[in-house]
Amino acid sequence: MIRHCTVLGAGSFGTALAVQLARRGHTVRLWDRNASRCASMNQDRRNPRYLKDIELPEGLVATPDLAAACRGSEMVVVSVPSHAVRDVVSAARDHIAVGTQICCASKGIEAGSLDTMHEVLSEVLGLAHQPQVTILSGPTFALELAQGMPTTIVAAGEDPATHAVAEAFHGGGLRVYHTHDVIGVCLGGALKNVVAIACGISDGLGIGLNARAGIITRGLAEIRRLAETLGAEPITMMGLAGMGDLVLTCTGNLSRNRRVGLALGEGRTLQDILDELGEVAEGVKTARTAHELARLHDVEMPITEQVHQVIYEGQSARDALAELMGRARKHDQH
Amino acid sequence: MIRHCTVLGAGSFGTALAVQLARRGHTVRLWDRNASRCASMNQDRRNPRYLKDIELPEGLVATPDLAAACRGSEMVVVSVPSHAVRDVVSAARDHIAVGTQICCASKGIEAGSLDTMHEVLSEVLGLAHQPQVTILSGPTFALELAQGMPTTIVAAGEDPATHAVAEAFHGGGLRVYHTHDVIGVCLGGALKNVVAIACGISDGLGIGLNARAGIITRGLAEIRRLAETLGAEPITMMGLAGMGDLVLTCTGNLSRNRRVGLALGEGRTLQDILDELGEVAEGVKTARTAHELARLHDVEMPITEQVHQVIYEGQSARDALAELMGRARKHDQH
Repeated sequence: MIRHCTVLGAGSFGTALAVQLARRGHTVRLWDRNASRCASMNQDRRNPRYLKDIELPEGLVATPDLAAACRGSEMVVVSVPSHAVRDVVSAARDHIAVGTQICCASKGIEAGSLDTMHEVLSEVLGLAHQPQVTILSGPTFALELAQGMPTTIVAAGEDPATHAVAEAFHGGGLRVYHTHDVIGVCLGGALKNVVAIACGISDGLGIGLNARAGIITRGLAEIRRLAETLGAEPITMMGLAGMGDLVLTCTGNLSRNRRVGLALGEGRTLQDILDELGEVAEGVKTARTAHELARLHDVEMPITEQVHQVIYEGQSARDALAELMGRARKHDQH
Repeated sequence: MIRHCTVLGAGSFGTALAVQLARRGHTVRLWDRNASRCASMNQDRRNPRYLKDIELPEGLVATPDLAAACRGSEMVVVSVPSHAVRDVVSAARDHIAVGTQICCASKGIEAGSLDTMHEVLSEVLGLAHQPQVTILSGPTFALELAQGMPTTIVAAGEDPATHAVAEAFHGGGLRVYHTHDVIGVCLGGALKNVVAIACGISDGLGIGLNARAGIITRGLAEIRRLAETLGAEPITMMGLAGMGDLVLTCTGNLSRNRRVGLALGEGRTLQDILDELGEVAEGVKTARTAHELARLHDVEMPITEQVHQVIYEGQSARDALAELMGRARKHDQH
């Protein structure tokens, strides 16, 4: 039974997960590298940057001290931007005891190595920790989770780790499902952000709901093709970390990635958009890494290809759409 | 090559399909049982009841004469409410030559027999026609299709019939995919209407986007369980007739089924809702037939079960939600 938890990263999702764990009766240390923000959280019982209306429960303490955050913890939840996972976990490693559950909520593919988050964690933490590495993913807007609204999520890893993690989070408004398909859950969570940008572009162009549903479906088909090539089970793409997360990200206005696409569809430049957003939109980086993975493994990913073209090659949104609509007829299961 | 087509049923979707076929250069006879409505369509070049802003192309002629509508046709598209398919096709049968493509766009499960639309058509038309029976399904709001906005759809049947049908429709804004999984496409199109009601209920209760994404995902999981039991391929549920149609119906406000759910979630009675709607909401009937199929084949369908409870057993929407949230933790692939 897990009692003492750590959450690394006080972004909106990290904060929501910490709040959920504290509400389930665990003690939670929430790490953020910014000391004054931590002090403010501990004093005002609010995160000054994210989910500002959510009161932080009593059992939650924020700290900028990584060692203190991890020491004695029975479950360390990683919720920093995907590009920071390697550095943060490397710095935390010596303070995490073998046997501690390691739960990753960051979604992305590492630039350069093209590693999934599970691969990054396994590499950094080493063999002794590997059976305890679990991936947490699914259709979860942080604000709704923090508000206690009904939410479903999936924990992917080996038994009994997934069950320990699932039990720790499950309850209140949150239902935690479990699966063994780690690679499928990792890739679903990462690649959907690129399709979300495509849906945003489509909505920005104002081409309707049929088009959006088509992009979501054919987007999932290409995610499945790549994921299957890399060892995932196709059925996982039908689950919470696949279509569940994809649907939420592609249809909810709260999603950062979708907002990037919307602005691109309206003809604005990427730099302008990112400046205004002021936050990480994982899909912008994943458009590049997914594109590289598709090339490397010779997998056809036309939607990802067009998003890559629009973001990095100066293709117009209209031309990208025309490319997609002009392709030859295909089998539905292709 | 198909040149002469017939569409049976001038509802919104039948009209949109007829318009698409006419725009692709085919001659189209659009059958509606109401003679004055046909006269009005032929004179004003508008359907007076549905898609009123869409001009009917020149090659499209409306007729209330079923025999005249079908005679000499190379493709008969059935687009009447699912409960009327048996009667209409029985009446048309003697006027449809063997070798004619029969394409069904109606979505539902027949009350009593619990037959899919493909089974109904095969039974009514007989063995000689069976290789030509194709099912058309996917994420297609009629209005957007008629407006020429980008739309994807799937034709399910045997080769070469599916390719003939796909070629006849494909082009302009419409991309037609194809598949051999007839039962999967039939069941996806029918069962998603029940999940759309569940999503409407959830939105009517105001419980957020995470909840809706969860219902869509777990709804698809239970559709897959039933469809697989009845011989469908699970991967079809990831395609246009599965998740594609499900996502569109569950997130687009245009859907009749979703609107029924919304009103139920707001506490209104079914009779009141149906009176106001004045149109067929297939999901209301499918909630009953799907519930019967699930019982018959001993398949767990908790969302369908709760929709059935709310519509037919007087269960409150809040209690239905509590039932769903209170279930034991499950495997994501269950």
